[in-house]
Amino acid sequence: MKKIGSLANEKGSRLVLALDVSGENGVETLRRMSVRLSDHIVGVKIGMPFVLSTPLSLLKPVIEEQSEDLVFIADAKLADVSHVNALTSEVLFNAGFDAVISHGFIGCDGGLDGAKQVALRLNKGLLVLVSMSHPASVGIIDRALTEIVREALMVEPDGIVAPATRPEVVSRVRKMLPEGMLMLSPGVGAQGAPFGSAIRAGADYEIVGRTIYGSQDPPAAAAAAVEEQRRAREG
Amino acid sequence: MKKIGSLANEKGSRLVLALDVSGENGVETLRRMSVRLSDHIVGVKIGMPFVLSTPLSLLKPVIEEQSEDLVFIADAKLADVSHVNALTSEVLFNAGFDAVISHGFIGCDGGLDGAKQVALRLNKGLLVLVSMSHPASVGIIDRALTEIVREALMVEPDGIVAPATRPEVVSRVRKMLPEGMLMLSPGVGAQGAPFGSAIRAGADYEIVGRTIYGSQDPPAAAAAAVEEQRRAREG
Repeated sequence: MKKIGSLANEKGSRLVLALDVSGENGVETLRRMSVRLSDHIVGVKIGMPFVLSTPLSLLKPVIEEQSEDLVFIADAKLADVSHVNALTSEVLFNAGFDAVISHGFIGCDGGLDGAKQVALRLNKGLLVLVSMSHPASVGIIDRALTEIVREALMVEPDGIVAPATRPEVVSRVRKMLPEGMLMLSPGVGAQGAPFGSAIRAGADYEIVGRTIYGSQDPPAAAAAAVEEQRRAREG
Repeated sequence: MKKIGSLANEKGSRLVLALDVSGENGVETLRRMSVRLSDHIVGVKIGMPFVLSTPLSLLKPVIEEQSEDLVFIADAKLADVSHVNALTSEVLFNAGFDAVISHGFIGCDGGLDGAKQVALRLNKGLLVLVSMSHPASVGIIDRALTEIVREALMVEPDGIVAPATRPEVVSRVRKMLPEGMLMLSPGVGAQGAPFGSAIRAGADYEIVGRTIYGSQDPPAAAAAAVEEQRRAREG
C-alpha cells in the first residue's frame, strides 16, 4: 500500500475509481477504464459483484498489466471470523489486488487480525471501513463509531474508509486517527457528495464511480474531479 | 427456502454441513461430500474463500446435481449497501444457491432490503446473521444484539443465524423471534459446541464443518451428529 502515496504525488491526484460493473463485459471495462484513466486516478476499487462474476484467472492479468500505475482495492467488506477473512484476503491478494477492505465492526480480536496477518505476509494492504452511507448505518453502526474506529486502529490498518456522503462522520473519524493515517472516502459524485468535499472534511482520497465511468468522456470527468480536489486541498 | 423443512422431516436430520475448503479440489470435495452425506444432512453452507476461488460455472452444475436433496447456502456475510448486496445475491442465486447469509448489523433500510427483494423475485432465501463466535463479537456486535435482531426481523428473513459456541446468545435470540422463524447455528463440532447443544438452546439447525468433512468416515460422523440432535430434540 505504500505506492498509493507516490502515485498520488506523481499524478497530482487523490482520486480512486469505484468500478461496480458486473457481468461478462466487466473485465473489458476494467481494462479500458484503467488504461484511459491511468493519468488521472491513483487506483481502482472493485466491488464483490464484479469479483464474483469474473473468474479470477481473467481478472488477474488485467490487474497485473496496470499494477505499476494503479492501486487495486478489493471492496470485499470482509466481515467474517479471522481465519475466513484470512483465506478470503489471500485469494484476493493472489488475484493481484493490492489491498482489501474489511469491516471494522467485527472488531480486532478474532476478526480483523487474520486479514492483517495475511496482508503483512504478502506485503499487501488492509483498509478498514468504519461507517457506511445508507440510512440504517446511522443506527447500529454509527452509534458504535468510536469503538469501531478504536478496534480498527488496534489492527494497525493501512487506511480507514468512511463515507463522503456524511462529511460529519469523516471529520469525526479524522480526529480519532493518528497523524498520517490514510483515509479514503467513497460516495463522491453520483451518490451525492461533491468532488473535494470529503477532502475538505479530512479524507486523503475520494472514491468516485458512475460519475466518471458512466460519463461520455471519462478522462475529462476525472480531470475535472482532480481539479476540484486540488482546490479543496489548497483551500 | 421452503424445502429445508421438508428435507428435515424426510431425513430426520437438522444438520447442515459447513464446507470451508478452498483451492482447486474444492468443487470435487463438494461433489463427493454432497453425494456421500445426502442422507444425513439437509444442506451445505459454503464460505466465500471457496466461492471466490472457484469459477461459478464449475460450481453451478455441482449444486444443480444435488438441488433436489440439499439446500445450498452461500455464507456471503453480505455487509454492503442495498444495491451491492442485491447484485452479489443475484450472482450467487444464479450460481444455484438457495439462500445467502447477510449480516444484520447493516440494518434494514438501504442495507438488508436489497438482497431481500432479489430473494423474493427469484424465490430464494435470505438468512440474517445476528451475532458471531469470535472474541471481539462480544463487544460491538453483541452490545447491539437487540437492535440487530429487530432490524433483521424488519426485512422478514427466511431464517436467523446465531453462533452455537455462545448458547446464551442463541437462547436470547430465540426469545426475540416470532413463532416458527427458522434459526440456524454454526460453530458445532470442532469449533467447540457439542452436537445437539444449539438445538437445546433454541436453534432448529446445527451447522457442522470439519468434524464431519475432516472425519475418517464422514457419513458415520454425520449419523452420530444426527443421533445427538434427535436426543436433544426429544430431551
